[in-house]
Amino acid sequence: MFIGVVEVEKKLKKKLAAKPLNFESFFSEKALGMKASEIRELLKLVETSDVISLAGGLPAPETFPVEVIKKITEDVLTNHADKALQYGTTKGFTPLRLALARWMEKRYRIPMSKVEIMMVAGSQEALDLLGRVFINPGDVVIVEAPTYLAALQAFNYYGPEFVSIPMDHDGMRVDVLRERLEELKGKGKRVKLLYTVSTFQNPMGVTMSLERRKELVKLAGEYDFIIVEDNPYSELRYSGEPIPPIKHFDSEGRVIYLGTFSKILAPGLRLGWVSAHPHFIRKMEIAKQSIDLCTNTLGQAIAWKYVEEGYLDEHIPEIIEFYKPRRDAMLKALEDFMPDGVEWTKPDGGMFVWATLPEGINTKTLLEKAVSKGVAYVPGEAFFAHREVKNALRLNFTYVPEEKIREGVKRLAEVIGEELRKSSSQ
Amino acid sequence: MFIGVVEVEKKLKKKLAAKPLNFESFFSEKALGMKASEIRELLKLVETSDVISLAGGLPAPETFPVEVIKKITEDVLTNHADKALQYGTTKGFTPLRLALARWMEKRYRIPMSKVEIMMVAGSQEALDLLGRVFINPGDVVIVEAPTYLAALQAFNYYGPEFVSIPMDHDGMRVDVLRERLEELKGKGKRVKLLYTVSTFQNPMGVTMSLERRKELVKLAGEYDFIIVEDNPYSELRYSGEPIPPIKHFDSEGRVIYLGTFSKILAPGLRLGWVSAHPHFIRKMEIAKQSIDLCTNTLGQAIAWKYVEEGYLDEHIPEIIEFYKPRRDAMLKALEDFMPDGVEWTKPDGGMFVWATLPEGINTKTLLEKAVSKGVAYVPGEAFFAHREVKNALRLNFTYVPEEKIREGVKRLAEVIGEELRKSSSQ
Repeated sequence: MFIGVVEVEKKLKKKLAAKPLNFESFFSEKALGMKASEIRELLKLVETSDVISLAGGLPAPETFPVEVIKKITEDVLTNHADKALQYGTTKGFTPLRLALARWMEKRYRIPMSKVEIMMVAGSQEALDLLGRVFINPGDVVIVEAPTYLAALQAFNYYGPEFVSIPMDHDGMRVDVLRERLEELKGKGKRVKLLYTVSTFQNPMGVTMSLERRKELVKLAGEYDFIIVEDNPYSELRYSGEPIPPIKHFDSEGRVIYLGTFSKILAPGLRLGWVSAHPHFIRKMEIAKQSIDLCTNTLGQAIAWKYVEEGYLDEHIPEIIEFYKPRRDAMLKALEDFMPDGVEWTKPDGGMFVWATLPEGINTKTLLEKAVSKGVAYVPGEAFFAHREVKNALRLNFTYVPEEKIREGVKRLAEVIGEELRKSSSQ
Repeated sequence: MFIGVVEVEKKLKKKLAAKPLNFESFFSEKALGMKASEIRELLKLVETSDVISLAGGLPAPETFPVEVIKKITEDVLTNHADKALQYGTTKGFTPLRLALARWMEKRYRIPMSKVEIMMVAGSQEALDLLGRVFINPGDVVIVEAPTYLAALQAFNYYGPEFVSIPMDHDGMRVDVLRERLEELKGKGKRVKLLYTVSTFQNPMGVTMSLERRKELVKLAGEYDFIIVEDNPYSELRYSGEPIPPIKHFDSEGRVIYLGTFSKILAPGLRLGWVSAHPHFIRKMEIAKQSIDLCTNTLGQAIAWKYVEEGYLDEHIPEIIEFYKPRRDAMLKALEDFMPDGVEWTKPDGGMFVWATLPEGINTKTLLEKAVSKGVAYVPGEAFFAHREVKNALRLNFTYVPEEKIREGVKRLAEVIGEELRKSSSQ
């Protein structure tokens, strides 16, 4: 009965060669505009070569608490298989939502009830849901410049007008934000959403200061908009003092908080959560219903035990201990090797460092050269809604071991140095 | 540090009572139109009472191969944790895609390569992706009448014009389809997609005949449209001879096939797959990227071993053995108790029976009465794109044990009998 794979491949080739359909004619207008990123394609190649990639955004697999997950999974499948393998409610597994509400209360001093929590397939799904639930074409969405690339992609589908606010070492320039809000108001334009990665931002690694957090919440009230606080990294703090999430200062229900297990448990479970006013949760729940019915329940049951039984709080210091030397190694290497004129952030946590090269150097065109010299990074351009900055780049320090980080930064410094000499001799 | 839960609830109440936002003012126009289904709300209540619910669409947890999943998960976490807990590619875990390609080839004689397979978060996610990738507002999408409710919901977001084709005991009336295609062509309207649950259809339980499958593929070529074949149930066959999927007859790449692990492994893993021409897969992959980055990898790794090591083929007969007596019990009870004038389908497999009551009885208004008498079902109306049929209902026979099925059908027959007497005496 079984037709060998080789024969199948032959059949497939024949099939694909047959009278081809006019594929494009079937796609929606929006789908015709969806293109794969060139950078992503280039970086795909890198992953299979011996280039040192500082480009990724992956946690180190060494930080996955495999033994704990094994133990929990055994427990869950022995005692709760009927629930953990069955369809769940769209909102998520109730014991997990309850455990997370308690954890957020304890950890961040945010009064929280389970009705304010919905589970999602990674916080990426929350970004898409936010777009679906809030954005009409042309609605103003305020983002940081730079900001998380995949948030731009997720929102972009819904056709917003992005307004970018510059960043500095204390996060979003809330003073500039006020000016822009006033301008937009003058033009009769309503701002609906503001999106921020508040702590150890992706891609910059910087953290919004306490004062700016308070000011931002005040502005949201004054100008009547919603703050989306995306907070995947705040538990990964290697130095400095913790700052409460923006959500902590929210007394009106204006802050929609996104959490994720990707960096504190394992990304492969695809588990995130939304903490928001029940009115917002309710609408997102209805929207999620037709997208995927519910989030995977086995993963939710595992995460429930992980939070409820205290493994999460035990494991966070272990992750920090693992990543801190990598962060230190990267900052040391940048200090040791980078030529004059290159600047970079010094993050207290998270996964990324952001480097800015002298004006005139295009990090996108430089990437191919860097790859040929054995190092990869993500060009900064794609992190800007309007692609206005060409001379920055993002470096990851969580995935690659210390010695490779040092070697990678050294190679990159050489490529940049060469480029600088070339441009100064022209 | 920890503020007790009671205190939190108090704080929350206070917070929610504070100056409320104008929530509606933030929602997108489409979100304002999203409403929770009344039926769903009513049925939620049922689940916590002692009503016999024949309404659900859940597989029986007794059919979950818990011991196999335990064994596989232990193996996966011992030997493949670095991959099984990490982010995966958007397209899915390659070994699983390869295993599925081989399985589809062996099982359905469909030549298949891994480039034709993408993993999704349950086939529900595929339905949303299909909407996103193919449907412009106003595009004609052909559906069966009745059809799978959540497909209507998923597509509906994208604003199609649904054209419904009636069903009989051999599935979609392909002769009527031809007429409608000709009419639409005459009006200058292009049909892009046709959606069918080809085998043991949800909600009717009927199967499209071999002749109609061939004819449908022919029509798709003639009128240049794509067939979406949703096939969650075909492995659950309790009687009769298997029929190849429509995809088996597809030589042009016109059939997009949706498979799922929800009924042959466990729905809680949220795992489905799309088999389609690589051109279509590619676009769906780009669309999925911004929705959830990738499907949960732990689930994918479990499913990989489940297919690859032959557990799937071993387990299917066990599921059939478990469900067949339930199907038989339902058909017997319908035969024994239903009053004259009630008709129902006699499915060879799947999860559902479809009953049609005499004209004039509205199953939606009857539901409350049925629930008060201790039995629940899903009113048929919501399965029609234009809600044109009021006197039908769907019964599930997989979730509830035989004796309860019998008792539930008996109660329902009494409610219907009473309604019939009432209407004949008026």
